Amino acid sequence: MNNIIICGIGLIGGSIAKGLPKDNFNVYVIDSNLDSKNNAIRNKHAHEAMDSVEEVKKLEDAIFIFATPPKTTLEILKKNEWLLGSKFSVTDVTSVKTELIKYLKGFDAENFILSHPISGSHLSGFENSSENLFAGKTTIISSFGSSKFHLDRIQNLWKSLKSNVIELDYENHDKLFSLTSHLPHFVAYSLMKVLHDNNIDISTYAGGGLKEFIRLSQSSPEMWGDIFQSNAHLNKHIDELVEKLIELKELSSSKDGFALKEYLKQFK
Amino acid sequence: MNNIIICGIGLIGGSIAKGLPKDNFNVYVIDSNLDSKNNAIRNKHAHEAMDSVEEVKKLEDAIFIFATPPKTTLEILKKNEWLLGSKFSVTDVTSVKTELIKYLKGFDAENFILSHPISGSHLSGFENSSENLFAGKTTIISSFGSSKFHLDRIQNLWKSLKSNVIELDYENHDKLFSLTSHLPHFVAYSLMKVLHDNNIDISTYAGGGLKEFIRLSQSSPEMWGDIFQSNAHLNKHIDELVEKLIELKELSSSKDGFALKEYLKQFK
Repeated sequence: MNNIIICGIGLIGGSIAKGLPKDNFNVYVIDSNLDSKNNAIRNKHAHEAMDSVEEVKKLEDAIFIFATPPKTTLEILKKNEWLLGSKFSVTDVTSVKTELIKYLKGFDAENFILSHPISGSHLSGFENSSENLFAGKTTIISSFGSSKFHLDRIQNLWKSLKSNVIELDYENHDKLFSLTSHLPHFVAYSLMKVLHDNNIDISTYAGGGLKEFIRLSQSSPEMWGDIFQSNAHLNKHIDELVEKLIELKELSSSKDGFALKEYLKQFK
Repeated sequence: MNNIIICGIGLIGGSIAKGLPKDNFNVYVIDSNLDSKNNAIRNKHAHEAMDSVEEVKKLEDAIFIFATPPKTTLEILKKNEWLLGSKFSVTDVTSVKTELIKYLKGFDAENFILSHPISGSHLSGFENSSENLFAGKTTIISSFGSSKFHLDRIQNLWKSLKSNVIELDYENHDKLFSLTSHLPHFVAYSLMKVLHDNNIDISTYAGGGLKEFIRLSQSSPEMWGDIFQSNAHLNKHIDELVEKLIELKELSSSKDGFALKEYLKQFK
């Protein structure tokens, strides 16, 4: 039996609790939200609730999962440095790693594996979690020269949740996701602000394309605020996007229909 | 029996041909693409193909639909000014009206009704058209002080295609759609250009949010080039978006987590 401790049972943590096969795993949950904890225990998604991370020490061995937003993860980890270098395998689930990597570099953290399940939702909280959130989706893991033992355990954890695991150099993680995920969300919020300031009734006139911007802009402000503040690569790519908007605007205004259409064709 | 002439049988024109109940309508099609025309006739989506707009004159009465991109619509209309003020009810389907309105203002065009079915797709061409493209979707129509006779006929045309019809003041059309449709597409192309220039492998790392940007950027370059060049309101809103991107970037960089989260909460 593997002991699994899930710290934070919102959308991601709750989906892990619901998705793990209970025959192979003892699931412990930690969360300041009593309703979520009670709900998880009552519906047999977890075996036991814990009141604090300190309480984890009573277990001889376990996989410890930070399923908290980026800044909260770092705060809790700083208060529980004993986790680093312990026998526990430790992982997180956030989509931004810059600050975490900066911190981990000060330690022998071979038992900390970075995880990033690419399976978010604009919905958040335990009430929206689902046992199938990770099934068929990709989870990125990055290693700090981790031992095979810890790496295997975290890989197997995600495989138990039916996720496809890909390894990625941790140095490249945030650059990649600043472009494929954080910038699209950043744009969605900015576009919604333009519509909002123009008093547009989006419920009546939103076509297919806009609906996705609306959905993205309804994601968790807590989590996305953290992400926007934490990704060291994002500002550079926002500047690039502003350049491209101006470049395409100039092309549209030049009346050179041919060059404009060639530009738009690049992505077909 | 109503005579319907569909000029241009791409995605929209083809879907009109396929969706109209053939018992009530005689459908004529005009297109320079012989394959599309032959296909429409062979599969009984149309009763007869015509070689030119001139040939339409042989009909005593008809509804004439321009299902061509914005600039093409205007070119063809300019060569066939006799349509304006004729007995025919005339309509278009494009999502940008600035240039068309400017032109129509020079005429007594009470038989020209502006139509805009909000039911596009990133796919284009007759081969992707569908009899249900408009069903349950909204079609905006705008009138130039049109007579009830012509207005009713165009309304009934869209209702025959099971679309919900909304009337909108033509002065407001392009401002509204520059925000709810043209700006989102414009952003999608610009964002894809940033990813492209950063050599990102979007097939492996695209999460849910990015997929929609990819889809939008694969829309018809012909049509969207026309739209970006024709909407008089778009440049102003691109400038507003650039302002909002910089505003949100400054907020993210200020380390004021509370103000940032309040900003992101506006759209929940």
